[in-house]
Amino acid sequence: MSTKAGGALTPDLDAAARPYAGASVLITGGLGFIGSSLALPLARAGAEVTLVDAMIPGYGGNLFNIEPVRGRVRVNFCDVRDPHAMAHLVQGQDFIFHCAAQVCHIMSLSDPFPDIDINIKGTAVLLEACKKANRRARIGKLGTRGQYGPSVKLPMSEDDPTNPKGIYEISLLAAEKIVKVYNDVHGIPATLFRLTNIYGPRAQMRHSRFGVANWFVRLAIDDETIQVFGDGLIKRDFVYIDDCVAAILQASSAETTVGEILNVGDDRPSCFRELADAVIRVCGTGRWEFAPFTPERAAQEPGDFYSDISRIRRLAGWEPRTSLDEGLRRTVEFYRAHRAAYWGTPE
Amino acid sequence: MSTKAGGALTPDLDAAARPYAGASVLITGGLGFIGSSLALPLARAGAEVTLVDAMIPGYGGNLFNIEPVRGRVRVNFCDVRDPHAMAHLVQGQDFIFHCAAQVCHIMSLSDPFPDIDINIKGTAVLLEACKKANRRARIGKLGTRGQYGPSVKLPMSEDDPTNPKGIYEISLLAAEKIVKVYNDVHGIPATLFRLTNIYGPRAQMRHSRFGVANWFVRLAIDDETIQVFGDGLIKRDFVYIDDCVAAILQASSAETTVGEILNVGDDRPSCFRELADAVIRVCGTGRWEFAPFTPERAAQEPGDFYSDISRIRRLAGWEPRTSLDEGLRRTVEFYRAHRAAYWGTPE
Repeated sequence: MSTKAGGALTPDLDAAARPYAGASVLITGGLGFIGSSLALPLARAGAEVTLVDAMIPGYGGNLFNIEPVRGRVRVNFCDVRDPHAMAHLVQGQDFIFHCAAQVCHIMSLSDPFPDIDINIKGTAVLLEACKKANRRARIGKLGTRGQYGPSVKLPMSEDDPTNPKGIYEISLLAAEKIVKVYNDVHGIPATLFRLTNIYGPRAQMRHSRFGVANWFVRLAIDDETIQVFGDGLIKRDFVYIDDCVAAILQASSAETTVGEILNVGDDRPSCFRELADAVIRVCGTGRWEFAPFTPERAAQEPGDFYSDISRIRRLAGWEPRTSLDEGLRRTVEFYRAHRAAYWGTPE
Repeated sequence: MSTKAGGALTPDLDAAARPYAGASVLITGGLGFIGSSLALPLARAGAEVTLVDAMIPGYGGNLFNIEPVRGRVRVNFCDVRDPHAMAHLVQGQDFIFHCAAQVCHIMSLSDPFPDIDINIKGTAVLLEACKKANRRARIGKLGTRGQYGPSVKLPMSEDDPTNPKGIYEISLLAAEKIVKVYNDVHGIPATLFRLTNIYGPRAQMRHSRFGVANWFVRLAIDDETIQVFGDGLIKRDFVYIDDCVAAILQASSAETTVGEILNVGDDRPSCFRELADAVIRVCGTGRWEFAPFTPERAAQEPGDFYSDISRIRRLAGWEPRTSLDEGLRRTVEFYRAHRAAYWGTPE
């Protein structure tokens, strides 16, 4: 842990990445939000990092994300569904972080096939590649708190029921269970992460379908109006990207977490009004207003959600360190500095 | 209910099919074990039955299964993954029983892709077809008790955790959840069945990978030796096909079961030794011996399982009627009479 100039605690990513020095690390979706955010501290720590990205238009892949470590990581453009490329790429890897996914839950309701194909079949392609070519690679598989569906209690823990309300969430739940089978039956060591709402630098910011907190930031930076659905009192746990990266790195270098499902969230939630207030306060621009739910959104809205993080706290010593204000401050600073690389319209 | 000559209670399939008189019914996997067994009473009751089957080699499709109603049902050879054929076929249907699936859990561990493609994507193709062309069709979706994985208590009820141990079971769990989303979000009324070990006439009998009870019957009819794994004391609930058909027909014609997951099983289990003893007693031929688990089988063996059937009993008034001895008697009688149509080697 390090104390920021502003007094806020932030995670020490260099310490979290240290166990990976000299290790070979493959990251699928490696040019996306979380994949690239993992790549940065890993490359700085001296890991041999290979990033796989399919660069599907509208998804998160963005070469600008890895500018700080360009030349120190290897970029391999291909799709995780490509069995021959993956069978080659997994060879010799010590760690594989599987971040590639279709991640929009609204899109999945009008067209379920990319989710099934990329998220489920793509995961099976990767794990079959490991089964055939490298069973000793340690897998970190990203999933979503959406896999739970509506909370049956708060906070939600990893053993609570999973009744997801969209195809996207179902696809990541199925993918998680597939990886668990390869862990249990084929002995490929894996940790299964269920991420809550992650926000921060390096996300896809061109459309509103990934990540509500980042979208609020874009609107405020552009001095536009944020729409807060319903009464704005629905609770969520928002986690800053660096905390998410620390969680994945700390847990995936621990022996205690093999075969475990781990929530990556925060047991101190905020409501959407608080989020909107904080974004506007930090930005100094923008405003927010109430808006009614669309019927599709209402049918899928799981209500209050926040995560029980006692398991990852116990097994990997992780908990989120960055306050919402500090995380938003860094997020706004990043996108103000690099706006052209993310939404590219004139300032 | 009717009392058999032998005194055993059996389900009254004509009564269960009566609500379907004059209705249009589509059955995917319609030439397979359960699909064809649904088709028979439905056709007799005067439903307009269309059977879809892909006739994939090694799967359950067998034209002999529908001999008794040939000419009274329409057979359409196609794959459920064919979006254009399915969009056409779902039009005007009042009921759709979705039985098509890859159903071998051992196969899924060496090659996960047919399960993902047929069971998950195929289900999404069917439901997308309904969403576009017929949202009023009532769906009956077949799943498996394997979706639970190891029992956390006995009997297992529909709200218990689902931690399946194979890709096949994961694929059917994902498919069930997909159908539930189309029920909840798109208003396509569906009932989700989780079937336990179903046995009886019209199954695929050429290889041992579907349905242990039927395989025991084949071995005994051929005067061969049945292998009982482990100590033979693992408990399962075996349900005779006519009871399974009655469950699906009764529940799918009730309004109370829309959106519900329903176990189709028996809360009075038998162990594998009892099954083997009963098969040999009923057949009068064959014998059984203990055999060690293979490592793959051991890794997947979920242990004792039987179903809490209080929900389907309450909502649809169903419970199994056929004793193991009576079900096996009818099974043996059927396959002895029609052996050539099922495993085709000389008697």
